[in-house]
Amino acid sequence: MNAVEKLQAVSKKNNSLVCVGLDIDPAKIPKHILLEKNPHLQFNKEIIEATQDLVCAYKPNMAFYESLGTEGMILLEKTIKLIPKDILIILDGKRNDIGNTANHYAKSLFETLNTDAVTINPYLGADSIQPFSNYTDKLSFILCRTSNPSAIDIQDYGPSDKPLYLHVAEKINEWNNHENLGAVVGATYPEELKEIRHILGEKTPLLIPGIGKQGGDLESTITYGVNSHGEMAVINSSRGIIYASNKEDYAQAARDATQQLKEAINEYRPTNP
Amino acid sequence: MNAVEKLQAVSKKNNSLVCVGLDIDPAKIPKHILLEKNPHLQFNKEIIEATQDLVCAYKPNMAFYESLGTEGMILLEKTIKLIPKDILIILDGKRNDIGNTANHYAKSLFETLNTDAVTINPYLGADSIQPFSNYTDKLSFILCRTSNPSAIDIQDYGPSDKPLYLHVAEKINEWNNHENLGAVVGATYPEELKEIRHILGEKTPLLIPGIGKQGGDLESTITYGVNSHGEMAVINSSRGIIYASNKEDYAQAARDATQQLKEAINEYRPTNP
Repeated sequence: MNAVEKLQAVSKKNNSLVCVGLDIDPAKIPKHILLEKNPHLQFNKEIIEATQDLVCAYKPNMAFYESLGTEGMILLEKTIKLIPKDILIILDGKRNDIGNTANHYAKSLFETLNTDAVTINPYLGADSIQPFSNYTDKLSFILCRTSNPSAIDIQDYGPSDKPLYLHVAEKINEWNNHENLGAVVGATYPEELKEIRHILGEKTPLLIPGIGKQGGDLESTITYGVNSHGEMAVINSSRGIIYASNKEDYAQAARDATQQLKEAINEYRPTNP
Repeated sequence: MNAVEKLQAVSKKNNSLVCVGLDIDPAKIPKHILLEKNPHLQFNKEIIEATQDLVCAYKPNMAFYESLGTEGMILLEKTIKLIPKDILIILDGKRNDIGNTANHYAKSLFETLNTDAVTINPYLGADSIQPFSNYTDKLSFILCRTSNPSAIDIQDYGPSDKPLYLHVAEKINEWNNHENLGAVVGATYPEELKEIRHILGEKTPLLIPGIGKQGGDLESTITYGVNSHGEMAVINSSRGIIYASNKEDYAQAARDATQQLKEAINEYRPTNP
């Protein structure tokens, strides 16, 4: 089973498009856990155990692990091993480099860290994407329209009827020989999400951050983000779930927040297309 | 002394614009070193000792260290500590993310790893650059025109008289309130290098990869890359220097290659502008 099929299978099994962002942050985790032996690992473990029947994916953002130094990389390796085998793991590193060097990133993420999926930056073009897409059983989400306010600085460049993010969407189609590329599109730009889904068609998964704390509207995100079967969208929430409570009930609070989000999403998914 | 001043001081002291790319690669280092206790660290140590009076900077590319797993991150930390304090250290990670998360990358690179300079990707816009530029004593090189053949896929997008890489160059000026931003421009595109230096003016450092193995022409690279004083350019060579020999004489061979490159570059620098 390749990563795209894995995503479809787990979305169906758990009836969920929710991805939980495992963005570990020493400043935000509940104070009482800091007394434990491996507080960050313990935190991730409890979050995963409390939510694993309600999600389709987990997404550790590498910046949060890197900033803990070598210890953070060990934490990342151990966290990946805690995730049940049938749930998609997306390593969000937004890495990329020229071909020869991109090979090393692809090897590091897909082989050393053994993840199912990654996020990559398109700025360097086709020969920087290929080292990732050559892993035909893996899935690579290419940044297309990011969720931040400054996304417009670079991504809106070009003619007004075809800004850069639409050119990137067309390139994703062009580069997608192995049908193992997806796109990252922020929920904070619903009109752009609609245009990008139109270009990418039915088969391409979208990774959609930006609901919750970042303010993306859920109804338009789901309406425009899923394909006609209500599938192929991965809706990420990080802080809204894992820091739902900073007290001893944090795991239960994370579960409640995930359940709520899952149901809210499912309300807007077309069921009988 | 901030990082830009440090670059100027060491370029002057060693009369050199050469940056040595410390792209450690188990497949390429001399076989006899593999018998030593910490072969990769030993290799970097000897390369640094053999070249430190001939360079202005060292540039470890993070992909090569990451692909060695946790051990690679320890190697990177130890390698950084081996570099003399007056030489610029550029961590080439081409990282970036949205604001909140970019803070963690900036902290990780500038504080945890204690580097002078980094490379970052502009695709996410101003709020992803600010967490780096807020470190006012550090230097951030923003990808503008990369050295690979596929650079044109995204970087040439837009009107033919102002493709995206020129828009990025203008944005670098706009974002450069602290005068601590630079640009990455590949030597493989000399005409583009000329245009970008014109936009960025006298004070902005350019990090220029792509000579040597990648085929960039040295005369036009230097002529177009430096400012009117023959300064503010960092000319990187990785494989051409550190793998100049794969025998026991590798350190001396690296020194010879560095010396040769330094002199070849200096021939094309204007001396009395």
